[in-house]
Amino acid sequence: MQRSPIDVFFEPKSVAVVGASPREGSLGRAILENISRNYKGSVYAVNPRHEKILGIRSYPSLSSIEGEVDIAVIAIDALRVPSVIEDAGKKKVKGVIIVSGGFAETGTQEGERLQKEVMDLATKYNIRILGPNCIGIFNSYNGIDTFFLPYEKMRRPKKGNISIISQSGALLATLMDWVASKNIRIGKAINFGNKVDVGEIESMDYFARDKETKVILMYLEGITPGSGSAFIETAKKVTSVYKKPIILVKGGKTSGGAKAAKSHTASLAGSYEIFKAAAKQSNIIIAKDLEELFDIAKVISSNNLPLGNRVAVVTNSGGHGVISTDTLVENGLAMAEISQETKEKLRQLFPSRVSINNPIDFTGDARPAYYEEILDLLANNNEADLFLVVALIQPPTMDLSIGDLIYNFTKKHPEKPIAVVTIGSKYGERLKRMLERRGIPTFEFPDRASKALAVLYKFRESLEADYDNCYREDVPKATLVNSRKIITNALNDGRSKLLENEALDLLEAFGIGIAKYCMISNPKEFKTCARDLSYPVAMKVVSRNVIHKTEAGGVLLNINNENEVIEGYRRIVESVRHNVPNAKIEGVIVQEMVKKGQEIIIGGKRDEVFGPVVLFGLGGIYTEVLGDVTMGISPITSCDALNMVNRIKGVKILNGYRGFGPVNKVALARYVMRVGELMLANPEIKEIDINPLIAYKEGAVAVDARIILEGG
Amino acid sequence: MQRSPIDVFFEPKSVAVVGASPREGSLGRAILENISRNYKGSVYAVNPRHEKILGIRSYPSLSSIEGEVDIAVIAIDALRVPSVIEDAGKKKVKGVIIVSGGFAETGTQEGERLQKEVMDLATKYNIRILGPNCIGIFNSYNGIDTFFLPYEKMRRPKKGNISIISQSGALLATLMDWVASKNIRIGKAINFGNKVDVGEIESMDYFARDKETKVILMYLEGITPGSGSAFIETAKKVTSVYKKPIILVKGGKTSGGAKAAKSHTASLAGSYEIFKAAAKQSNIIIAKDLEELFDIAKVISSNNLPLGNRVAVVTNSGGHGVISTDTLVENGLAMAEISQETKEKLRQLFPSRVSINNPIDFTGDARPAYYEEILDLLANNNEADLFLVVALIQPPTMDLSIGDLIYNFTKKHPEKPIAVVTIGSKYGERLKRMLERRGIPTFEFPDRASKALAVLYKFRESLEADYDNCYREDVPKATLVNSRKIITNALNDGRSKLLENEALDLLEAFGIGIAKYCMISNPKEFKTCARDLSYPVAMKVVSRNVIHKTEAGGVLLNINNENEVIEGYRRIVESVRHNVPNAKIEGVIVQEMVKKGQEIIIGGKRDEVFGPVVLFGLGGIYTEVLGDVTMGISPITSCDALNMVNRIKGVKILNGYRGFGPVNKVALARYVMRVGELMLANPEIKEIDINPLIAYKEGAVAVDARIILEGG
Repeated sequence: MQRSPIDVFFEPKSVAVVGASPREGSLGRAILENISRNYKGSVYAVNPRHEKILGIRSYPSLSSIEGEVDIAVIAIDALRVPSVIEDAGKKKVKGVIIVSGGFAETGTQEGERLQKEVMDLATKYNIRILGPNCIGIFNSYNGIDTFFLPYEKMRRPKKGNISIISQSGALLATLMDWVASKNIRIGKAINFGNKVDVGEIESMDYFARDKETKVILMYLEGITPGSGSAFIETAKKVTSVYKKPIILVKGGKTSGGAKAAKSHTASLAGSYEIFKAAAKQSNIIIAKDLEELFDIAKVISSNNLPLGNRVAVVTNSGGHGVISTDTLVENGLAMAEISQETKEKLRQLFPSRVSINNPIDFTGDARPAYYEEILDLLANNNEADLFLVVALIQPPTMDLSIGDLIYNFTKKHPEKPIAVVTIGSKYGERLKRMLERRGIPTFEFPDRASKALAVLYKFRESLEADYDNCYREDVPKATLVNSRKIITNALNDGRSKLLENEALDLLEAFGIGIAKYCMISNPKEFKTCARDLSYPVAMKVVSRNVIHKTEAGGVLLNINNENEVIEGYRRIVESVRHNVPNAKIEGVIVQEMVKKGQEIIIGGKRDEVFGPVVLFGLGGIYTEVLGDVTMGISPITSCDALNMVNRIKGVKILNGYRGFGPVNKVALARYVMRVGELMLANPEIKEIDINPLIAYKEGAVAVDARIILEGG
Repeated sequence: MQRSPIDVFFEPKSVAVVGASPREGSLGRAILENISRNYKGSVYAVNPRHEKILGIRSYPSLSSIEGEVDIAVIAIDALRVPSVIEDAGKKKVKGVIIVSGGFAETGTQEGERLQKEVMDLATKYNIRILGPNCIGIFNSYNGIDTFFLPYEKMRRPKKGNISIISQSGALLATLMDWVASKNIRIGKAINFGNKVDVGEIESMDYFARDKETKVILMYLEGITPGSGSAFIETAKKVTSVYKKPIILVKGGKTSGGAKAAKSHTASLAGSYEIFKAAAKQSNIIIAKDLEELFDIAKVISSNNLPLGNRVAVVTNSGGHGVISTDTLVENGLAMAEISQETKEKLRQLFPSRVSINNPIDFTGDARPAYYEEILDLLANNNEADLFLVVALIQPPTMDLSIGDLIYNFTKKHPEKPIAVVTIGSKYGERLKRMLERRGIPTFEFPDRASKALAVLYKFRESLEADYDNCYREDVPKATLVNSRKIITNALNDGRSKLLENEALDLLEAFGIGIAKYCMISNPKEFKTCARDLSYPVAMKVVSRNVIHKTEAGGVLLNINNENEVIEGYRRIVESVRHNVPNAKIEGVIVQEMVKKGQEIIIGGKRDEVFGPVVLFGLGGIYTEVLGDVTMGISPITSCDALNMVNRIKGVKILNGYRGFGPVNKVALARYVMRVGELMLANPEIKEIDINPLIAYKEGAVAVDARIILEGG
């Protein structure tokens, strides 16, 4: 397999630290110290004022080093960075990590200019850049550690299968320090700050291929504009082909947060709603906060995937049992129904005060041996797929041996995912650490364990989705040609909004059903064009100058025969001429009035980050007031589209509710996909609004459409 | 002030431990040990087999003790408890804490019988009971500690102003152990298990009056059926008169959780939706989980209330700044706008890489002194009302002196609430503990700090609500008499559903506008009754036997004159006779057809715990599908009712949206109150359904109503 270009940052054979220094408290010293601690490759210091730093030979420049230099970590004043890149280029350095700040994130012209200079030089010499304004790379497997945070202040976690991508350096460093104290094990981590080159997409790709990574965590403030579809494509591949979960926390969800992100990493945070749609499409798990990120990570990293969704709760606290049940159910898992046979065994084994329903509640005088017996019995009889064990150590009858018993259970039944809840101060903390060190995911509170177990199950479910049967809509060449013609024509005519007949024709070209219509520019034309129309029909003026058709007298409804159409044409033209004196009237649309059905809205807009975004929702103000719409990023597969239709809160109405529906959801999904393709094929389209689309059991037809072009 | 009867449990002058024992690991030993550790009153052991236990004189029975015994803690086999109560009665013991399990919570007949026996005896001797199946009382102020958990396994928190009410003993004990390690200070705690006597209402009342309690925390699985309105009344008094916040976590939210609660504390968990409505009405703060419970508690317990909602975020991590901003805004606080004047000062004070917008981001090389300067400047210039300070200690330029600087700031500016975010392992943990010990609320994650600050602000806002201007609807005596007449009449007639005319009359009696109607039992009556009606009118058959009126041909719409009414009457009678042959026809309602307006639904039902509950929502299936309704427990004040109307998600529609509304929300609120009063005044009413109620700018009128009586 072809190695990704960023592999060199994680697995260099040699590293130079530019700006290395013997001065206590300097970044250059901390970086040199940290990288030379465990890393076995060649390490060089670069600092003209020293011959040796911390026992490592120091060179006046990169090019003066005899051996090859794979990567250089640069921690010097921003102004001097360009000349170092120049030097690195001559030395054929493969990648540089620019730790220094003072570039675009300052918001100054000077910073912007420096950043551009650095980028241009790197391109010239074909050097990959990480940063600037970043802390770089951590790799627990080979000791690469470019973080400038001293070991006394920031502990490094032990080797593990969780890897982290973080746009924020301080966040990453402090989280790693924290997880080290929680015995959470980290494989690798990357921080790219201003990300002028290496970013989240290549990082995901690296971790996908990385054998040591099982779970990918991500803190992201913004995706590079224009790279949205590559982001989705890559994430989808990571989660479905490599089957590695990506769990993500997004910074800059609110407009205030987005502003803060701008001055933090110069990121465009974008719309969070659209980001969530993208995450959904690429099967990324969004964690609501950083704690949840690690809650989920530790459960996934240390368990196998469950075979079903039935959870058994075993507890020595009734209150914890109640909360566990509530939160498991709220998160979509099922409480296992204990079989009659097992119940009878339990009745013989335990005193009568033990509640043998699920939760199995030993009450305050549980003994560790109770847990051993019950867990074994439940697993052997396959009474549950997952286990949530509440083991509080405070009651007099409990002791630390419970830790061994639970550990033995996990060894004996690796097929049963487990999470343990235990809490306390000194004594309780001992049990917690004992479990954590043995890789058993341990929580202080049941709700967090429940949520994490639920995500584990959902991830397993998502792997079962049959992606091979998801398809994208084909757009025949003729369709493309036709659509280009309509748009070019409008643009040549100086219009940034399509006329209604053009809009309807465009939809029809892309296979979207429309209410049958014909357009006439004088009453005589009706005879030939009206052959196929059934009455009643509606009539609408078509004019670039008439914005409010109804107010201008440009609309007539419930027209029942040819004579009324001819008379109608005259009335419309007369009214419009009177109300909008200089309006150019292109003609009048005569359109079949469709029968009553469920009103739907399908819209499209163009996002700076993700490109064409399609919206789906029910018609009516209630949808609008509650914002009950779903979104998808084009290209939208058939699976994505059906998902969008099913995810609106009011979906029950589409499924058939009281007198309403059911309607053809597959047809609606197909139209969602086609609107997406239509926007991909025609980049001039800025906005589409099909409102209403009327849906029936058999299919759906667009009645009105508004299409705005760039510049409109 | 009159002392509450349960005060004796918290402040006894003497305590006897029945079942005291010298045996290691026994409950009796643990309780005696724990209570005699710090408590200065008289302690007696009761155990006939010993003369002395742990140096404390032991008596054969309660009655053999010479001195007075205020309370007895009982930890013996359940079967022997009744005889001890008998003995306690003779000794004039004021209260007993029954630690023993084996009562109703077992679900056995024997357990139920024993519990009843104990209750009867306690009533006979006027003894208050805590429990059974509980761990009792903790009072850090006088050393009362009846918990049977040994000190080595469960740390006790230091003295503080937070008090806890918990239905679960194990949950309470383990939480207290945990908070002790987090330096959260607890005043008092109570656990009442099966609560045959003392429960949440008296506990709230005690803590309301208790000078040492500032914040009340509660874990509750179920409220005693029938005591719902006393619960609301008490909680309202605690929060608005005593101005003490109550923060609550509810167990048994889901039906699975409710089942678990039943076998845990024999509690009826009830509907969580209704519980939330009750909490809203009594200004109880619902925490989403136990962590949030203490997050909020520590911020409220150690800060003054803020004077406004403007927050300043000061950070040395951009990522934390972004997340802080997102979560503050999401929780309804405002990011302070730093004034131009202050910004200029900041520019002079700090290097240019410091972002002087809010968040103020020092970036990775902040020094502790930066924080000191900026916090002081912002507070002195009153640039913000609350402070969220992110102080990560990992960067080389930071050290523990930041802890002193923040502490000094809080001393200098007690009027500015603050929360600090810091995270890490060894070194970071030191800073955290240092802040915690000085009573500064400290968080590992910004989102939790944000949420807690937001609740602090909201609590302050709630205190400003002008409760004196909230009123309850007066129900004149005549109204009561009339309503009783309608209901008695229906019951005497053997009906458990009111006829539609009765239902409309009942609403009208309570001041709810109805569409004008008259009822005729032959066409001739119309002349006299119709004088006031305007056309068009609708006609509807009234018959106890006709369930589907429309299907039976019993409804006619758009009737425009007297002749049509007379003809309509004949047609309705004929159709109904034909379709429902034996139907007794009471008459036909002739009702004005009201003009188009916003459809509303007001409903009422009777809850086991809370009594009459009123529902409010918009008409239409979308409301139904999304469950967009609010609820209120009667009596509903004018403020509660307006709140209900304003809290539906679709409220924008009532405020006027596109072509719809605005409608008279005050009138709707009044009707909500009146439906509540109607149900309170007539306990036979099981269900009310006003659907639709048509709302306009001027008011609202009920068009259809269904009222079901008990047994229906």
